Amino acid sequence: MSIVTLTSDFGSKDSFAASMKGVILRINQQAQIVDITHEIGPQDIWEAAFSLKTAYSYFPKGTVHLAVVDPGVGSGRRPIIAVTESYYFVGPDNGIFSLIYQEAERLRVHHITAAHYFLPNPGPTFHGRDIFAPVASWLSKGIPSGNFGDVVEDYVKLNVPLPKVAAGGIEGHVIHIDRFGNVITNIGFKDLRSLFPEGTEVGPVTITVAGKEIKGMKKFYAEAGPGEASAIFNSSGYLEIFLFKQNARTALSLKRGEPVRLALQK
Amino acid sequence: MSIVTLTSDFGSKDSFAASMKGVILRINQQAQIVDITHEIGPQDIWEAAFSLKTAYSYFPKGTVHLAVVDPGVGSGRRPIIAVTESYYFVGPDNGIFSLIYQEAERLRVHHITAAHYFLPNPGPTFHGRDIFAPVASWLSKGIPSGNFGDVVEDYVKLNVPLPKVAAGGIEGHVIHIDRFGNVITNIGFKDLRSLFPEGTEVGPVTITVAGKEIKGMKKFYAEAGPGEASAIFNSSGYLEIFLFKQNARTALSLKRGEPVRLALQK
Amino acid sequence: MSIVTLTSDFGSKDSFAASMKGVILRINQQAQIVDITHEIGPQDIWEAAFSLKTAYSYFPKGTVHLAVVDPGVGSGRRPIIAVTESYYFVGPDNGIFSLIYQEAERLRVHHITAAHYFLPNPGPTFHGRDIFAPVASWLSKGIPSGNFGDVVEDYVKLNVPLPKVAAGGIEGHVIHIDRFGNVITNIGFKDLRSLFPEGTEVGPVTITVAGKEIKGMKKFYAEAGPGEASAIFNSSGYLEIFLFKQNARTALSLKRGEPVRLALQK
Repeated sequence: MSIVTLTSDFGSKDSFAASMKGVILRINQQAQIVDITHEIGPQDIWEAAFSLKTAYSYFPKGTVHLAVVDPGVGSGRRPIIAVTESYYFVGPDNGIFSLIYQEAERLRVHHITAAHYFLPNPGPTFHGRDIFAPVASWLSKGIPSGNFGDVVEDYVKLNVPLPKVAAGGIEGHVIHIDRFGNVITNIGFKDLRSLFPEGTEVGPVTITVAGKEIKGMKKFYAEAGPGEASAIFNSSGYLEIFLFKQNARTALSLKRGEPVRLALQK
Repeated sequence: MSIVTLTSDFGSKDSFAASMKGVILRINQQAQIVDITHEIGPQDIWEAAFSLKTAYSYFPKGTVHLAVVDPGVGSGRRPIIAVTESYYFVGPDNGIFSLIYQEAERLRVHHITAAHYFLPNPGPTFHGRDIFAPVASWLSKGIPSGNFGDVVEDYVKLNVPLPKVAAGGIEGHVIHIDRFGNVITNIGFKDLRSLFPEGTEVGPVTITVAGKEIKGMKKFYAEAGPGEASAIFNSSGYLEIFLFKQNARTALSLKRGEPVRLALQK
Repeated sequence: MSIVTLTSDFGSKDSFAASMKGVILRINQQAQIVDITHEIGPQDIWEAAFSLKTAYSYFPKGTVHLAVVDPGVGSGRRPIIAVTESYYFVGPDNGIFSLIYQEAERLRVHHITAAHYFLPNPGPTFHGRDIFAPVASWLSKGIPSGNFGDVVEDYVKLNVPLPKVAAGGIEGHVIHIDRFGNVITNIGFKDLRSLFPEGTEVGPVTITVAGKEIKGMKKFYAEAGPGEASAIFNSSGYLEIFLFKQNARTALSLKRGEPVRLALQK
């Protein structure tokens, strides 16, 4: 059995995702299809990149990850397959796999051109169904990635702003806000760790966001008092701003892009 | 392995759809269950008919499509199985399969009466779980459709208003608005094609909707300028009104039923 | 093949649920994963308990039901496995399985401590992925529940207020409002039945809720007139307040906890 995951901005009220699943199953009835999410904001390539990044590595080796947030559908943008040491990624060449490229130990990107793997007469608005789904399904059946098209080197990468790490602290920003209103930043535990000599403990820090100061880090959510703006390194290794059983996004009026500063306490 | 798809207005916050899946798997543990959508507006039979129509034909031959938008549950409305040349459809006889009936090359409709296939003591409010799910699952296991009840001819069909095609143009209306705010009409490419002699090219057209004129058709979304109300024949073959990376529904204040006129340019 | 169901407050826009599915499939690629719902209100343990209760018993014997609404994640609250005569339940020991405990004929609860079944280095905020998903998947592969930890007796039970049944009537309250705005109470048909001698018919009743009187019970939804506040015993056996094709929650301004009184008509 082989696994195909789906990430898209197709939502759940239309039949877009279901049509892709039908196409996949018609080619490979043994495929096990798993939704990562279809609730990516319309055309929000970054959000798709982030969702995929937080989930892809938990799937079995050989999984085919199909991602379709594709405002350029029907234009000249290329359909691609990215092959890493463990997974296949299928989607448009618009940067949606940028965070995968950063983490891959080995990476090869193919420009998909072998139209005999597509549905006949692909329409102009739904390559998810007509091109990406059949390619992903054929891949999941074992067709070698090289059969779909030549290797390219000039694939598109999103500009992914990294946090600025200096001696006294780290400057980052909000990269995602989850369903609970927890606010995830691009500051990683490794960034903090790098401020201290190896073998020593990480010292106390102060987080500043939207004019608010947060002293110290929590070890788990329930450690925070009622209404207390708090910070934690979450289970993806990112600095996260939260309020226990409350929505930090609304409580602190935060949004994606908001600057976040982590400073060592003197 | 056999596939059962689900279409309903049960939403995703309650356990309705899950109960149906449990019932299906208890009867046929080999069933592969695929959601088309559960986000149909409450009691919106048309929307369910449309969603099903845009997705069903992409599934493997033999797929059982189960659809439950069922305001008449527990009343006298009949449970039915519709059998076409390629698929089975299971649901209430309220017109939910009307668009399937239009497209089927062969069609046979059974009134489901064989209660020994139901869950024991079906409740009055949830035939999706107690009647339709078990029937769909038994069908997916290969029980012949004739075993469930007699053929009927007076099954319910929704009044599906077709576009009016005249020499100078086509009058249709909005039949669906998708997650992106793209506005889908009942004007098909075939309707436009029929205005021109065979072997000739399709000439330029003007679309009028909500007092707004759209000149010409785009070939793909990204061809439209920022904020430009545009039209395209989408990947289901329907005329679609859109704005690139914007929501045409809100930008143009459109809703289902809104008249749309396509006229040949002089 | 073995079935694992998922119930959570993770929503569908983030990749939380997908990460759990990846973990499950990496351990047991034969697992069939079914979502009950991920749309439980954030931290709403009761709602999760109710959703699970209405769905779990429709699944095949041996199904592993995984439920994660877990505000105490990372704190001292225990991870548990509850084993009944037919199913396994995996989740935090915060009362989420309270309604299962009430219905189980046989019940054994294990405190999960065998860390070699967890993902390496579980994070502080996502035991769904790092602890519960792998345990559920190993269970679905046939690892005996006793291998995960010792039996405990002091597992947490929510205070589940039962309706007060007296000679003249029953006092209960609203316990759930579904997607349609149907308002479900904790008054069961058995409660009503108990007011009448065995072998006699159930007499006419009046329901009072939010100052509104509802005379008599409907047999099915469509029996109610337009705009008529109505009551029915639904397919889970609960007294339900509804309006035909309308939203009773908004029409009657009802919410969870609202008192409901059922009185015998004189």
